[in-house]
Amino acid sequence: MLTGVLVTTLDVVGTFVFALSGGAVALHRRLDAFGVLVLCLAAGLGGGIVRDLLLGRVPPTALTDGWYGSMCLLAALVVVLAPAGGHVAGMLQDGRGRLMTSIQVLDAIGLGLFAVVGASLGLDAGLGAGAAIAMGALTAVGGGITRDVLAGRTPAVLHRDVYALAAIAGAAAVVGGHAAGLPPVPVGVAGAALTTVLRLTAMARVWRSPRPRAALPD
Amino acid sequence: MLTGVLVTTLDVVGTFVFALSGGAVALHRRLDAFGVLVLCLAAGLGGGIVRDLLLGRVPPTALTDGWYGSMCLLAALVVVLAPAGGHVAGMLQDGRGRLMTSIQVLDAIGLGLFAVVGASLGLDAGLGAGAAIAMGALTAVGGGITRDVLAGRTPAVLHRDVYALAAIAGAAAVVGGHAAGLPPVPVGVAGAALTTVLRLTAMARVWRSPRPRAALPD
Amino acid sequence: MLTGVLVTTLDVVGTFVFALSGGAVALHRRLDAFGVLVLCLAAGLGGGIVRDLLLGRVPPTALTDGWYGSMCLLAALVVVLAPAGGHVAGMLQDGRGRLMTSIQVLDAIGLGLFAVVGASLGLDAGLGAGAAIAMGALTAVGGGITRDVLAGRTPAVLHRDVYALAAIAGAAAVVGGHAAGLPPVPVGVAGAALTTVLRLTAMARVWRSPRPRAALPD
Repeated sequence: MLTGVLVTTLDVVGTFVFALSGGAVALHRRLDAFGVLVLCLAAGLGGGIVRDLLLGRVPPTALTDGWYGSMCLLAALVVVLAPAGGHVAGMLQDGRGRLMTSIQVLDAIGLGLFAVVGASLGLDAGLGAGAAIAMGALTAVGGGITRDVLAGRTPAVLHRDVYALAAIAGAAAVVGGHAAGLPPVPVGVAGAALTTVLRLTAMARVWRSPRPRAALPD
Repeated sequence: MLTGVLVTTLDVVGTFVFALSGGAVALHRRLDAFGVLVLCLAAGLGGGIVRDLLLGRVPPTALTDGWYGSMCLLAALVVVLAPAGGHVAGMLQDGRGRLMTSIQVLDAIGLGLFAVVGASLGLDAGLGAGAAIAMGALTAVGGGITRDVLAGRTPAVLHRDVYALAAIAGAAAVVGGHAAGLPPVPVGVAGAALTTVLRLTAMARVWRSPRPRAALPD
Repeated sequence: MLTGVLVTTLDVVGTFVFALSGGAVALHRRLDAFGVLVLCLAAGLGGGIVRDLLLGRVPPTALTDGWYGSMCLLAALVVVLAPAGGHVAGMLQDGRGRLMTSIQVLDAIGLGLFAVVGASLGLDAGLGAGAAIAMGALTAVGGGITRDVLAGRTPAVLHRDVYALAAIAGAAAVVGGHAAGLPPVPVGVAGAALTTVLRLTAMARVWRSPRPRAALPD
């Protein structure tokens, strides 16, 4: 779908942004420098590695292309060394009700980038529409799930409204554009932008996804 | 081992039943509709995806065959929309001491189906007896482990007695029947029934697996 | 890199030692005999299975070679049946401040063995230096992560200082020796010894890895 260079660039930028979010969680947990690095690697690489395993792309790109690990190392250095690292990264944590920081914007951008890259690689692998959308969503939220499971938190995707739905929307745009025969690069850019705008708007407006009707007897 | 159509049918039915269990956990955790869907997917597809990765079957059947994801979507819809969804699904949770509901029976059936399918695919892949039994057990309990880790619960398989042992028994029956040269379809049916009956009997009688002798100083 | 027989021997010994650590965690959690077995399997096989999936070695060696599962079964039997099993295994838990037991020494040896085996297999698969070191570290700490996530504990690697750093050092020695054209067997032995000595010294001296500078507003 997208050209190789563009996919790699989007992927590497997204990796750095998500790695920062891993460092932020590690700071909140008061982990040491190595704990910061582990959660940077988990958040930055988790989604892409799972995606590559599912598509049979082994060894995963995260292991064969040095850019990915380097981005995680860089993010860990920023979080550990920069005096303002904790402060900036900390703002990423609590989505609702606060001013959106540059990191929150970047996180929403990363979500869009990973959703588009994942869906695009799914189509390249010959998957059907639903599966390609699932690959996009998984790539986008997989790193955050890995990060949160390691840190002993309920994964954000389970209770942070509209987060994964925004990723699904961007991935669906890529798959829909492919089915309609549209040129892949503008469709990819539009899909990423759709995800990012949806996520930012949801944060700004405190949108919530619907609740189940059923009440559960305890 | 088993014919493709039979394996797929057993697999799809088992997926739906396990997906319902994911929805039940999500309701207990008071997650929103998307959280219900995520846990339905994790519980319904987790075991089969891990099994396919281990056997080198990529992309996993869950991604290439639309029936699996559709069953999870359907289960999520049932749990979110049906007024009685929460009530029925909730009964799945607390095995011991309560009347067995239709869902509990289906869950035990699903356990048997997945154990037989996993062991059968393991034999097809040329694995030895022990490894094929392990594949059956992993397929049967893997989805529940994924569901519980995401939901932040200690996986049920670690403390719910006889659950995994029942899956191992059914998988062992398949492997034993294969070694004895018996026809695969009746052996598969017998293996699934063995697992299901063991699990239901264990629930009814509150069987417990043995405790370690050693006491641990705290 | 290393010859196949040597790699397998190191791998099997390491599997047994790590499986014992899984049994120790299960005892602390007061799980039944099956829970002990599950955590023995997770701790003993988790790192190697993830490593094999990432390198495209499917089905993983843990499934095709009966020695690995047998070591986990044996470790579970030791923990469940031996009157002193809980006592000895329990000493593995709380690294700092206590006399090092034979199990703690074996655990540090296992860490070195797995780091060297993982890095060696990574080089065999054609990975670059950084990725091969990452494979060594992942093999060494992966089983412990799997064990702790299943048991609902924060993975030890996130807060147990120098543990993973010691694994990285041993893996880096293997990769460096390979780049320098040194003979693989003595380099492997030296790498494993480096990891083991670092880990034991860190336990004895209560070394700590550096803390991030940034404080986080809560």
